[in-house]
Amino acid sequence: MSAIKMFEKPLGMRDTFPVTYEKIEEVRQTGRKFLRARGFDFIETPSLEYFDTVGKASAIYDASLFKLVDSQGNTLVLRPDMTTPIARVATSKLLKEKIPLRLAYFANVFRAQQTEGGRPAEFGQMGIEIIGDSSVYADAETIITAIHLIQSFGIHSFKITIGHAGVLNCILKDYTESDEQAEKLRTLLVERNYVGFEEAVEQFHLPKTKSDALLQFISEATNIVSIEHIEKYVRKNDALAYVQQLMELVSNADLSPYVALDFTLSSHMNYYTGMLFEVFAEGSGFALGNGGRYDGLLHHFGSEVGATGFGIRVDRLLEVLPTKPTLEQQVAIIFEECQFTKALELANSLRQEGKLVTVQSKKGLIDEEAFTKQFEKVVYVSQED
Amino acid sequence: MSAIKMFEKPLGMRDTFPVTYEKIEEVRQTGRKFLRARGFDFIETPSLEYFDTVGKASAIYDASLFKLVDSQGNTLVLRPDMTTPIARVATSKLLKEKIPLRLAYFANVFRAQQTEGGRPAEFGQMGIEIIGDSSVYADAETIITAIHLIQSFGIHSFKITIGHAGVLNCILKDYTESDEQAEKLRTLLVERNYVGFEEAVEQFHLPKTKSDALLQFISEATNIVSIEHIEKYVRKNDALAYVQQLMELVSNADLSPYVALDFTLSSHMNYYTGMLFEVFAEGSGFALGNGGRYDGLLHHFGSEVGATGFGIRVDRLLEVLPTKPTLEQQVAIIFEECQFTKALELANSLRQEGKLVTVQSKKGLIDEEAFTKQFEKVVYVSQED
Repeated sequence: MSAIKMFEKPLGMRDTFPVTYEKIEEVRQTGRKFLRARGFDFIETPSLEYFDTVGKASAIYDASLFKLVDSQGNTLVLRPDMTTPIARVATSKLLKEKIPLRLAYFANVFRAQQTEGGRPAEFGQMGIEIIGDSSVYADAETIITAIHLIQSFGIHSFKITIGHAGVLNCILKDYTESDEQAEKLRTLLVERNYVGFEEAVEQFHLPKTKSDALLQFISEATNIVSIEHIEKYVRKNDALAYVQQLMELVSNADLSPYVALDFTLSSHMNYYTGMLFEVFAEGSGFALGNGGRYDGLLHHFGSEVGATGFGIRVDRLLEVLPTKPTLEQQVAIIFEECQFTKALELANSLRQEGKLVTVQSKKGLIDEEAFTKQFEKVVYVSQED
Repeated sequence: MSAIKMFEKPLGMRDTFPVTYEKIEEVRQTGRKFLRARGFDFIETPSLEYFDTVGKASAIYDASLFKLVDSQGNTLVLRPDMTTPIARVATSKLLKEKIPLRLAYFANVFRAQQTEGGRPAEFGQMGIEIIGDSSVYADAETIITAIHLIQSFGIHSFKITIGHAGVLNCILKDYTESDEQAEKLRTLLVERNYVGFEEAVEQFHLPKTKSDALLQFISEATNIVSIEHIEKYVRKNDALAYVQQLMELVSNADLSPYVALDFTLSSHMNYYTGMLFEVFAEGSGFALGNGGRYDGLLHHFGSEVGATGFGIRVDRLLEVLPTKPTLEQQVAIIFEECQFTKALELANSLRQEGKLVTVQSKKGLIDEEAFTKQFEKVVYVSQED
């Protein structure tokens, strides 16, 4: 094996160095304290699951799954998300103890990369799931918790765009002339292919009233502030009334500035049955996180209860995190032969002052100058002392 | 797929429920604070590594590796330990910045299980590596840090047994008549097969002085308190002088009660070149952790510097962790229609008192009695208020 190959990592795999590690750890602690105070219980699930159980049910495309075969011949997957394993745990065990469940996680998930493109194949996600509450209050709690959680990290320039699968389905059904047409347009929206959407509408040769409505919808629908704007496209229905109530609850919590409506929001997974949302922070081109109601997944696991939740990508959160000064002073104590005990005692007293203290023998140093310049303060313990 | 299969997890994989999660999180925080104060920098490496890079070099048997093939046809492994990935990171990057390095980790590692036997296939490890210091002080720091770290968790009944590959090799060479015999005995010691050791010694038909010495060694060597006890078996050499100096440094730090010598300690990996040790806590039948000097692994990665370190198994640590009372009061606020905002305000004020507060709509509850009995205190916010 060549020396270069020896140091390589698989496609999309990254090392996390100390400065980034500490930022992630602070996010973890801040988020954990925040979510526990709101009644969420943290759980961890295994990195590996059966493909038949979690792989098939997850919202992730098959090509993005890391698969392997165990010694019994079963196909396993590295968990591609946390929502599906948590649905497994909830339906098999936890829902028997408590309904609704409020669960939280901070975990790495895995997505196989096909090409070099800077996308991580393993990244951290922090999120919550409220399982067993079908009321609009659970969805409002999810969105409000997402906003307050992001604020708790010191991030204030962000927006949550909210849509609803039921409202979108209603519009697509009303202004197309077949299920195939509606499904084609929905797929293009999942891909965020708005140009493709407009081209498809032209190709369908719909009556002018319908095609005009669809084209106007796509040009207006991605960032509207009030439910009235969408009422010209869609007949009054339960889904629309639901979104209206949800927006009122968010507004009553004084959080209107953080939300907007986007009825083009869609997911390729059919278990997203109700409201869904995405979080975009200023300074990042990618969604910081997303969430929504996914009653269909629980039904897949044989439970008839509702579920809603969200997840935030830790790597993208780090990109928009305000920088904080490090407060802890790093001190090196360099000791000569026979001064080890004395050096340890000195180190302990400095640690009690909150300093981060490295005790290093002079004998063990290869390049003393290079070593000591890594520290803010260097103390020598020599034999003459 | 049957309902039972739907909820299963792969062999040896476990869910971590909230009570255990919080215990692990406390271990993580206590350990991280402790190790950072001692100048150790935490890093994380990917869960997946190339088999050629990390899988082959690791100390773990091939049958215990989870292997998969990526889309480029490379064989990957789920990291079976942290020492090998850290040796990769150190030699490819970090040693260019600082020598010696003091690195720490808290990470899950993976060991494939062949049969149902209660052994976990994924478990947490916390540990340190001091890379680039060949002095006895680095080994002393490793052992002293291990002792103080375990104490920091409130565990005080434990013992560290220390051996040395060089001393053992010297004894095996002196009292056998071929390298094959020495190797055979070393293998039996790795397996802790003391009965097999005695049987092999008989079968070798060695001169009586030699076989008597080996049998006496094996009966006496596993828990001796002073280096003098081993001197009757082994001629004075550097390794013995090294262990003597190491024990003196530990003794000077007032930690003698926590250490014992065991010169039968051995590893199947030939890169363990110097001292090695194991940690046993009262109340657990398995080693809580182990460590040692592994200069050979760094040499494998093309670096000529020395390295030493240890790792503790988090699952075994939990088994011997003293139980602590939970101090946070869990409160549920149940609100009626239109009282959401009022409930949120009340929750915020209770959270400022340090309580863990769940806000739940009465409408979303399926079984109110079952839900509320999970909380220490329940507050109702009704329309009459």
